[in-house]
Amino acid sequence: MLNDRIRYAPLRDKVMDSVQAASHIQDGANLFISGFTAGYPKLIPRELVNRAEAGERLKVNVYAGASTGEQVDGIMARAGIVNWRRPYMSDRNMRELINREEILFKDDHLSQLPPLVRSGEWGPVDVAVVEVLAITERGHLIPTMSVGNTPTYVREAKKIIIEMSGAEPPELEGIHDIYIPEDPPYRMPIPIYRTSDRVGKPFMECNPDRVVAILASKEEDSCAIFNEPDEVALLIAEQILDFVQHEVKQGRLPAGLPWQSGVGDVANAVLGGFLEDDFFHDLDLYSEVLQDAVLDLIDMGKVRAASGSAMTLSTKARKRFFKELYRYKEKIVLRPTEISNSPEVIRRLGVLAVNTAVEADIYGQVNSTHVCGSQLMNGIGGSGDFERNSALSFMVTPSMAKGGKISCIVPMVSHVDHSEHSVDVIVTERGLVDTRNLTPRQVAEQVIKKCAHPEYRDLLWDYYQRALKQRGGHEPHLLNEVFSFHTRLLETGDMRP
Amino acid sequence: MLNDRIRYAPLRDKVMDSVQAASHIQDGANLFISGFTAGYPKLIPRELVNRAEAGERLKVNVYAGASTGEQVDGIMARAGIVNWRRPYMSDRNMRELINREEILFKDDHLSQLPPLVRSGEWGPVDVAVVEVLAITERGHLIPTMSVGNTPTYVREAKKIIIEMSGAEPPELEGIHDIYIPEDPPYRMPIPIYRTSDRVGKPFMECNPDRVVAILASKEEDSCAIFNEPDEVALLIAEQILDFVQHEVKQGRLPAGLPWQSGVGDVANAVLGGFLEDDFFHDLDLYSEVLQDAVLDLIDMGKVRAASGSAMTLSTKARKRFFKELYRYKEKIVLRPTEISNSPEVIRRLGVLAVNTAVEADIYGQVNSTHVCGSQLMNGIGGSGDFERNSALSFMVTPSMAKGGKISCIVPMVSHVDHSEHSVDVIVTERGLVDTRNLTPRQVAEQVIKKCAHPEYRDLLWDYYQRALKQRGGHEPHLLNEVFSFHTRLLETGDMRP
Repeated sequence: MLNDRIRYAPLRDKVMDSVQAASHIQDGANLFISGFTAGYPKLIPRELVNRAEAGERLKVNVYAGASTGEQVDGIMARAGIVNWRRPYMSDRNMRELINREEILFKDDHLSQLPPLVRSGEWGPVDVAVVEVLAITERGHLIPTMSVGNTPTYVREAKKIIIEMSGAEPPELEGIHDIYIPEDPPYRMPIPIYRTSDRVGKPFMECNPDRVVAILASKEEDSCAIFNEPDEVALLIAEQILDFVQHEVKQGRLPAGLPWQSGVGDVANAVLGGFLEDDFFHDLDLYSEVLQDAVLDLIDMGKVRAASGSAMTLSTKARKRFFKELYRYKEKIVLRPTEISNSPEVIRRLGVLAVNTAVEADIYGQVNSTHVCGSQLMNGIGGSGDFERNSALSFMVTPSMAKGGKISCIVPMVSHVDHSEHSVDVIVTERGLVDTRNLTPRQVAEQVIKKCAHPEYRDLLWDYYQRALKQRGGHEPHLLNEVFSFHTRLLETGDMRP
Repeated sequence: MLNDRIRYAPLRDKVMDSVQAASHIQDGANLFISGFTAGYPKLIPRELVNRAEAGERLKVNVYAGASTGEQVDGIMARAGIVNWRRPYMSDRNMRELINREEILFKDDHLSQLPPLVRSGEWGPVDVAVVEVLAITERGHLIPTMSVGNTPTYVREAKKIIIEMSGAEPPELEGIHDIYIPEDPPYRMPIPIYRTSDRVGKPFMECNPDRVVAILASKEEDSCAIFNEPDEVALLIAEQILDFVQHEVKQGRLPAGLPWQSGVGDVANAVLGGFLEDDFFHDLDLYSEVLQDAVLDLIDMGKVRAASGSAMTLSTKARKRFFKELYRYKEKIVLRPTEISNSPEVIRRLGVLAVNTAVEADIYGQVNSTHVCGSQLMNGIGGSGDFERNSALSFMVTPSMAKGGKISCIVPMVSHVDHSEHSVDVIVTERGLVDTRNLTPRQVAEQVIKKCAHPEYRDLLWDYYQRALKQRGGHEPHLLNEVFSFHTRLLETGDMRP
């Protein structure tokens, strides 16, 4: 089986075990790995952890496409062998260490990394560790369930270690579209005009001389677990679909704009909402991560094309996807993050972006990353790429969290990732506010009335009214009490007095 | 003279006085005017003010390209005849009324407006009032010193009133490059690959049947006043040039990336810095507003191409520009704001963006618009378009303002326009911090040490150290005292205790 997948014969000699392979990775190395929620290597991280546990002094910098699974971020964080980690992660243990600065982390817009790596700004690409489906006749690499930044990492790496995955069927080949743009000042347009456009090659170009090891792997990605959407998610989804439908009918929004939707249950619910809907047909999804709902929509005949950088599926959906791959492959394109998240393409296509907030404030500023201003959750990911450049940007959040102890609508967000200028529409299960033609004061009135939970409405209204009277201005704020909700939460565990 | 400039003969019958012309504008009208720091109409605003002063009940919505001069924003604001005003303004009287919500204002990213107007999202384009240099043989319009959003306003307007300017020489014709992209989902790439590329027409397409009036005008734009750059501006400029030179020499930044620089003295000083410099040649400027320094650089033979949406010149520079127009025209292109500020083009060209902050915080979040969180200064303008999509983004500010009463480096900015993810380099006259490969904690240490003024360094360091110990986290903050600098300023007029 392994030889079938290594179609470039000279590389068959490079097959070895993970102990030998990992010997190319030394203390202090810059490790650039494949992976964007899926498609990350599993054997080398485990072997590095083994070495550390056996007493070796080992710290490496880990650069991926975005988050990976327990088999990378979880075990490496716990073993204490990660120095820098970029960009985005969602592992509980790693998060703790980042918040203690025991792992160094900087939060990046995902679309901006590959050119920085190519410029050398992130230091030498010592070793790329890449999960692949197959090696072509010329030594090029077929990715697995994600593309992420891997094409750039492979191109720039001094040494390449390959984990040949046996977990995906060979028919996955052909789903990817790999295109690395020329860097400025000599870049030409990225020639994507429609969601379905293929502009590159189905493989990542690779110089086989740099491949130092190939491992046979049977490990699977840790699968996503999606909950059935709850009432809150369904209400949010319903309002977004109603709003867009209304704007299209009024002639203010053209029909047929592609959708992006962030990661998680609410995002999945928004796409799920299309299943019950009669208005939207021939959907284009120009997104980052494709989740279970995309397969459902394809099955219903609702999708014209779905483009992303990764597929994150539940165990059940994964089986279904592999079983009828021939059918799904006609609809799905997986691209490098630099392309899936390209401001150029997002603006050109006129994407409708739906992303999730940790909290939003009465003026529409949004926090996606830091709890009470200080504690990092996961990172900004691609939300900035989409919110800032889309034709219409939605930010969604439940009105409350933790059984009411937290209001997700606050006087001022404790950290800003997306400014009011980049956020068009705020949605909670309570209501939706289109901020595009409102002054900040009008936004505040509407967000408090429509989006906030009734339990917090009076508190917010009282704050706003006093700010208006005592301070006034274009965006009235009382700076000496603007974080009273948050400080109460920190002191008493509840934002309510 | 007037007939020479109205080359489409049937329109010569439309010449009338401003009383007649302004009769097309009624109470409640949406007025879409030309103008982006320059090139705004002068006669119609005056006439509307006359009518209001004579007792007529008159309120109009005024939509321009960006700021205009005293002859529009100043007199109309004082006369109380402006209902909505978008986007960006810099007039003192208008600012006061906006901060009292007596004029409605929403702060927009400049690149995003024209498609919203075309979609009808801003309501009907009742009347466009446009300053032009000439009308072509087919009835199309040649702009004057700015393009702004005028091509879209002219295309969408039900009625068009033209102010034919006699203040600029006819040879200005040919400097403009007018291109309105198709709107999503049918947009194709904006075909600009180099700063100098011309992709459109030298005129704004106009349906002459919609022209209801033509006025002869001799009014000039109120000219910009540039101060000789002070030591602070020079030190900021010097550091930016040194930094870029160093990055280019290290091979981390390609040579020849185009520059954008915001409006004002510091921006002018950055460009002025090139005059004394031996390293930078064949400069490309892909900017928004072209100021005096651009002419100096052209005179020195340092400029390959300068692209913008407007020219804002001092009286002296304006004379010089008109005198040797034939020479300057070879180097300068004026484009619609949608193109000068296009995320697609900015990312493709790899622009180096330099914009001014009101204040920056220790983690690199930036406030460009609101003093003490509430009081609007001018607006975000195009700074978000450039900071977010550039290859490298600088945010500059003096370390102190008001003779030391205000520190421009604060624990947390009181309003966020540009998040830390979009700001690469912070510069004051004291020092420069490249945040791209630093964690937020490392950024804080460096910004406090290098960028803050010594008078505030201990205060900031004390805050940061206590936040670190008491709260920790990825971005340590003490929310109950994070605005102590600002509240002290509001109470005592000084941020120092």
